[in-house]
Amino acid sequence: MTELIERESAVPIYQQLEAMFHAKIASGEWSPGQRIPSENELHKTYGLSRMTVRGVLTRMVNDGLLNRVAGKGTFVAQRKISAVSPAYKGIREQLEALGYHTSTTLIALERTTAPTRVSERLRLEADDDVYAIVRLRSVDGKPLSVHRSFVPARLAPDLDTLDVVNEQLCVVLEENFALPMHSVEEDLEAVAVEGADAKLLELRKGDPALHLTDVISDGAGTAFEYSTIVFRGDTMRLKFDYKRV
Amino acid sequence: MTELIERESAVPIYQQLEAMFHAKIASGEWSPGQRIPSENELHKTYGLSRMTVRGVLTRMVNDGLLNRVAGKGTFVAQRKISAVSPAYKGIREQLEALGYHTSTTLIALERTTAPTRVSERLRLEADDDVYAIVRLRSVDGKPLSVHRSFVPARLAPDLDTLDVVNEQLCVVLEENFALPMHSVEEDLEAVAVEGADAKLLELRKGDPALHLTDVISDGAGTAFEYSTIVFRGDTMRLKFDYKRV
Repeated sequence: MTELIERESAVPIYQQLEAMFHAKIASGEWSPGQRIPSENELHKTYGLSRMTVRGVLTRMVNDGLLNRVAGKGTFVAQRKISAVSPAYKGIREQLEALGYHTSTTLIALERTTAPTRVSERLRLEADDDVYAIVRLRSVDGKPLSVHRSFVPARLAPDLDTLDVVNEQLCVVLEENFALPMHSVEEDLEAVAVEGADAKLLELRKGDPALHLTDVISDGAGTAFEYSTIVFRGDTMRLKFDYKRV
Repeated sequence: MTELIERESAVPIYQQLEAMFHAKIASGEWSPGQRIPSENELHKTYGLSRMTVRGVLTRMVNDGLLNRVAGKGTFVAQRKISAVSPAYKGIREQLEALGYHTSTTLIALERTTAPTRVSERLRLEADDDVYAIVRLRSVDGKPLSVHRSFVPARLAPDLDTLDVVNEQLCVVLEENFALPMHSVEEDLEAVAVEGADAKLLELRKGDPALHLTDVISDGAGTAFEYSTIVFRGDTMRLKFDYKRV
């Protein structure tokens, strides 16, 4: 153990300790998901009072760098992926630009009647079928998001014969059916993840998830795609920049 | 009971039943949070098969109109409040424009040292204190959100003597300290609500919450406010509109 607290320093002891712990996380010595030594071990290692150690850990928990799990210990928090909304830029493109390896799995693709909420938002007639596409997106081999998309069969006949796994859906729709994304209405919610999605995302039922709903229209105002994306809450963060003009 | 299923109608029976249930929700006969009659009661009331009733309820659960709670029954879902990001327009103004009655409670206001994450984002010097303000926002008497704001004391001296409960913080900062909101960096996450916030928001620890972080800068690029807002996940939905230009 080469790290030493300098008791004579002008920098308060708790700040020195916190800086050391930050460095351990930054260097990867303490990696995301790993349990760190207990308060008891840390106070012995550094020869500091238990209260000082506890104070520093509490600050780092409040800062989101550590998580305490009752009865289990203190863990290094998972770093979240930061991305802008998929309505601005495909999530896959963004992830790949960040150096992540992404993969997509087709869970279901069928022609069916739409759920009520979808038919209302897409203003479907009673006899309008939709293509319903369910895809799972993974990052570095770990599930990130479940995408459910509905496209009226009338606007995109034979969509089920095209490649919607390796191609972005918006590219497929624009190139094959002249349906260009012109405007997007997006709703963003925090939800408790439900059974089927929990299983796909390897979460427990009830864990928090970020839930996006996108209704995409062409230049004439025809809504041609209704999609929901459920992101693992512990992995995804969306960022927005606003400027007053 | 004047509602009747028309067995001779061209409209399928399950659609008639679903339309009736939608009407009950729309009219408020079934109000948000209320338990509806059991599958068993409904199938007797309408003289329909249990499978038909179950199918309709499942569709409405999938559509987010009803929630099933294991061992307790089926409940009418809470309607969520839809608002644009507070970086565009104050949440309170939006809620009041929607006809909600809002109130704000000051939980804490103190001059203190900033958590690490805050001092990094506000680029504070080691001896810079902040004013830390914690407020609870309620709508129609029910808690909606916890707001934690940090403002460097150097930029807003004596902020603690001003009214930050009845006035918007951004108005107070602009009018008293010439700190106009020019740009906002916003991060949006779904989180499991923690102990203190769960208590304030009348949630159970671990329930989903929408978590916003806003870093607000003036025209010269000086970051002068760091705020987090934790919204009850079951009450708030944020909406965004994008247009391709």
